[in-house]
Amino acid sequence: MSGLPQPVLIVGTGLMGTSLALSLRRCGVELWLADRDPAALAVAVGRGAGVRAPAVGHPGLVVVAVPPSATAGAVGDALVRHPAAVVTDVASVKAPVLRALQVAGVDVARYVGGHPMAGREVSGPRAARADLLDDRPWVVADHPSASAEAVEVVTELALAARALPIRMPVAEHDRAVAVVSHAPQLLSSLLAARLLDTTEQTVSIAGQGLRDMTRIAASDPGLWVEILTANAAPVGAVLAALREDLDTVLAALARVDHGGQEAVAEALRRGNAGRDRVPGKHGPGTATPTAVVPVLISDRPGELGRLFAAVAEAGLSVEDVRIEHVLGKPTGVVELSVAAGSAAELGEALRAAGWVVRG
Amino acid sequence: MSGLPQPVLIVGTGLMGTSLALSLRRCGVELWLADRDPAALAVAVGRGAGVRAPAVGHPGLVVVAVPPSATAGAVGDALVRHPAAVVTDVASVKAPVLRALQVAGVDVARYVGGHPMAGREVSGPRAARADLLDDRPWVVADHPSASAEAVEVVTELALAARALPIRMPVAEHDRAVAVVSHAPQLLSSLLAARLLDTTEQTVSIAGQGLRDMTRIAASDPGLWVEILTANAAPVGAVLAALREDLDTVLAALARVDHGGQEAVAEALRRGNAGRDRVPGKHGPGTATPTAVVPVLISDRPGELGRLFAAVAEAGLSVEDVRIEHVLGKPTGVVELSVAAGSAAELGEALRAAGWVVRG
Repeated sequence: MSGLPQPVLIVGTGLMGTSLALSLRRCGVELWLADRDPAALAVAVGRGAGVRAPAVGHPGLVVVAVPPSATAGAVGDALVRHPAAVVTDVASVKAPVLRALQVAGVDVARYVGGHPMAGREVSGPRAARADLLDDRPWVVADHPSASAEAVEVVTELALAARALPIRMPVAEHDRAVAVVSHAPQLLSSLLAARLLDTTEQTVSIAGQGLRDMTRIAASDPGLWVEILTANAAPVGAVLAALREDLDTVLAALARVDHGGQEAVAEALRRGNAGRDRVPGKHGPGTATPTAVVPVLISDRPGELGRLFAAVAEAGLSVEDVRIEHVLGKPTGVVELSVAAGSAAELGEALRAAGWVVRG
Repeated sequence: MSGLPQPVLIVGTGLMGTSLALSLRRCGVELWLADRDPAALAVAVGRGAGVRAPAVGHPGLVVVAVPPSATAGAVGDALVRHPAAVVTDVASVKAPVLRALQVAGVDVARYVGGHPMAGREVSGPRAARADLLDDRPWVVADHPSASAEAVEVVTELALAARALPIRMPVAEHDRAVAVVSHAPQLLSSLLAARLLDTTEQTVSIAGQGLRDMTRIAASDPGLWVEILTANAAPVGAVLAALREDLDTVLAALARVDHGGQEAVAEALRRGNAGRDRVPGKHGPGTATPTAVVPVLISDRPGELGRLFAAVAEAGLSVEDVRIEHVLGKPTGVVELSVAAGSAAELGEALRAAGWVVRG
């Protein structure tokens, strides 16, 4: 049972609002639900996410989970209607919401925004999952006018949803998502667009590197244009800095016979150092040495299942798995990552079981 | 048994030369091996890749597999020493080799370069594998002075090594690798470098998108600076075009309240269209609809093995698998891709076996 001020009112029963409600129901939190769309509200209530918010009475905490463009208005309404409640939201860019409230002259002491770092490719209350937020970072977006109590309550909310609260000032949050999420999204799109003018033969020799670099270019433009334009200045700052580095590389490539090599090498070395900062399985700096056992598979039905049954039989722990498909052929290579000391043993066990182990 | 002109002389018994030799030995090709480093040569011979090249006598085909900067010299030597042999190489950029030969006044009718699209993170003849080239694209780099016979022989070589020959003019090859491999490498490095100035908290909220976008930024700068500077003009052309698109986006982000949204949306839509051109498992346009079944796992030893044993028991075919690790927590989500119609069945089977299936 959580120490949250209750009931908790969730405004907006889409994917995020309903998932949060289902998550909080697991520890018995009393939930009121509201949505402009009666059908969405009925689905959320029907899934056991809570009860329809009554016309009178006050919640202890309001979570606004409506589309980004409607967030500031809904937060302002909640602060006025429920003068003792803490109010938070889940919009993925924080400064515009706070700015709009301040411009409107709303007292924002009881407002602390949040950003649960989770999502799905599908939307609406039917797609909601009680565990959507489990173990996910949830930014608690602090600001100078926020009361200590409001920060505390929003942190409690994240914990009650089994997420990992990370307290960060509003502006720092927006700069952080610009560099770790928004700028990468645009770069992936810009790189993928370079393939539009190429021949079929050109793309036929693409490998895993290009596939990884363009995966998020498949994202929904409608959603992303809203996010990117809401965070335009921080995203612009990251991309402008990257453009400067790109100009340096372009100049270096234009004079490779006259000392340009060193500037290219420096860009690559800086890339190495930056990549080292990206958290892996257990966070930065805690990786244990692993080795990869590459196994050839056909695409007969059940082939992967048979392989993993063989791995299970060998009794070894697989840390990670990656499948590299072979273009246009009914084969692939499954790369099994195991503790460095176990690779030879796993390779032998799989060979003995009839698998083709490379290397 | 292959119809290649024999013996085949391989000059350079590193990873690629020795792997190719081991590959050709599978169909009984007669192989002569040479390397400036007697130790490397001894390892290759010891692994059964072929015999030491005799001091006299002529091979029917010479494959030069030395470092890029030494390639043109070794190809020129081979053309002069073996006046009836076809000569090829495996360097990853083709125009500089051809240009150097032409500048040196060598007759290049018997030279057709190649580029087997395969590699490993390790090097040397000990790391060689007979199946390194199986099912991999192998570009046969055609040029106007090449004899039809030389093109035919190099195509036969790729087939004998069980690779997929793709015939492409030299300049087209270099432009193709610039856009599908070299420019993505530099962009990944430039993006990763943007993380150098960020806080620990900033990188702590990074997700799978950033991990994918920066994976190849971990590549070896020494190797890549050689590749990138050898292909400087085509790489520069791709990056210059990308920079123009980036400028458009930057300008749009600076005026989001005055019509900038549409330019951002257009960049995202072009990214969607470009991504659609990237070949997947069975090449472009042949994907069957799949659905993802997300399963929660702990990191107890053997957890993945137990999961795949359960999948095998369910008797369903898994098309793809992806593990999303949760930062700093002993849990992760395994995303099993199955035919769209089988997702519900697999989810139920795994739940019945005690697994936590999301969604």
